[in-house]
Amino acid sequence: MSKLRCHISISLDGFVAGPRQSAENPLGEGGERLHDWVFPLAAWREAHGQHGGEVNESSRIIEESRQNIGAAVMGRNMFGPVGGGPWGDEQWTGWWGDNPPYHYPVFVLTHHPRGPLELEGGTTFHFVTEGIESALDQARKAAAGKDVMLWGGAQVVNEYLAAGLLDELELHVVPILLGGGAGLFEGLGHTDVQLEQVRAVPAPGVTHLKYRLGT
Amino acid sequence: MSKLRCHISISLDGFVAGPRQSAENPLGEGGERLHDWVFPLAAWREAHGQHGGEVNESSRIIEESRQNIGAAVMGRNMFGPVGGGPWGDEQWTGWWGDNPPYHYPVFVLTHHPRGPLELEGGTTFHFVTEGIESALDQARKAAAGKDVMLWGGAQVVNEYLAAGLLDELELHVVPILLGGGAGLFEGLGHTDVQLEQVRAVPAPGVTHLKYRLGT
Repeated sequence: MSKLRCHISISLDGFVAGPRQSAENPLGEGGERLHDWVFPLAAWREAHGQHGGEVNESSRIIEESRQNIGAAVMGRNMFGPVGGGPWGDEQWTGWWGDNPPYHYPVFVLTHHPRGPLELEGGTTFHFVTEGIESALDQARKAAAGKDVMLWGGAQVVNEYLAAGLLDELELHVVPILLGGGAGLFEGLGHTDVQLEQVRAVPAPGVTHLKYRLGT
Repeated sequence: MSKLRCHISISLDGFVAGPRQSAENPLGEGGERLHDWVFPLAAWREAHGQHGGEVNESSRIIEESRQNIGAAVMGRNMFGPVGGGPWGDEQWTGWWGDNPPYHYPVFVLTHHPRGPLELEGGTTFHFVTEGIESALDQARKAAAGKDVMLWGGAQVVNEYLAAGLLDELELHVVPILLGGGAGLFEGLGHTDVQLEQVRAVPAPGVTHLKYRLGT
């Protein structure tokens, strides 16, 4: 069956964004350092219309993370600025310009209804107000047998974890301490989530830890 | 120079003990699962006077963690029961019986003065009321050029981290979610701690992540 997969960069102290996220600073203080390992990679640059770049142990992790994905789910703050901004007036079309790097349908969890937003290159944003199970159902249908990627942020991943709906979690563990921010696993409380180690891959500036989930 | 090294088992959600630690349940709810990976190992059993056991990728990590250690520091809750118990009347001699598995001087951080406690096999517990820097100074002197092991718990490790006094941190990351408890890195806030990845070693039921620290 089609899997729900989440691959996410996280500080050693467990945050996927730094403290004090805002419209001006969407990743929070220090949060941009969570992605330092990925920007130099040829695999990342190519997907964002750039040339050249490095190839290292992270390259196959990135390439694998893109394989067999037919649709995605993301939280409202992944799509638009935290705390308001231009989202409300429906002018906001995401952070990624006219041709986002997804090239598949993306289901955005929100409380504000809005019609589908079709951009170039095969990316269409659908806005889902009926909650995480509905978003996953719609994404699974759109993925037509392929897997669904869960892009985050922390709160949405935690909701899927708590509901036992996540099948695969790959943490890109970055050797920094953010000291606060958006905490993965935060407030989950006692859960019956079972994790099975799949692999650990050290690479420059990051270690990739992959887990399979069950309940 | 003699290094301060910490090797500690931690859940994937960042806890080194589960919620609701007590005299009856010193590792908190579910916390005993943090150590499931270590008990079957021959390297662990041998150090605790037992025979047989497994050899796997964790064995060399355990063996390495014991090399070149001349003394240790631990928090009060590592030595005696949380929340009172027999500590106060000086009858308490630790969790480990007459012959603890340390075989070197151990400096216990506490607010209650007490004379040294010499047990069999070379383990002497010294009780330090002057704080973390004094405990480290005394342990370094006792170690006579060898390294000092920091045994935990979370609060003490966090204090040494915040003070920039820790040189090496090896996390034994266990694929469980405790949902609460004693959080490593908790309340550290913004720190200037610099971490450098040393290695990542996957093993049955655990992944060992080693970091060097600087400031």
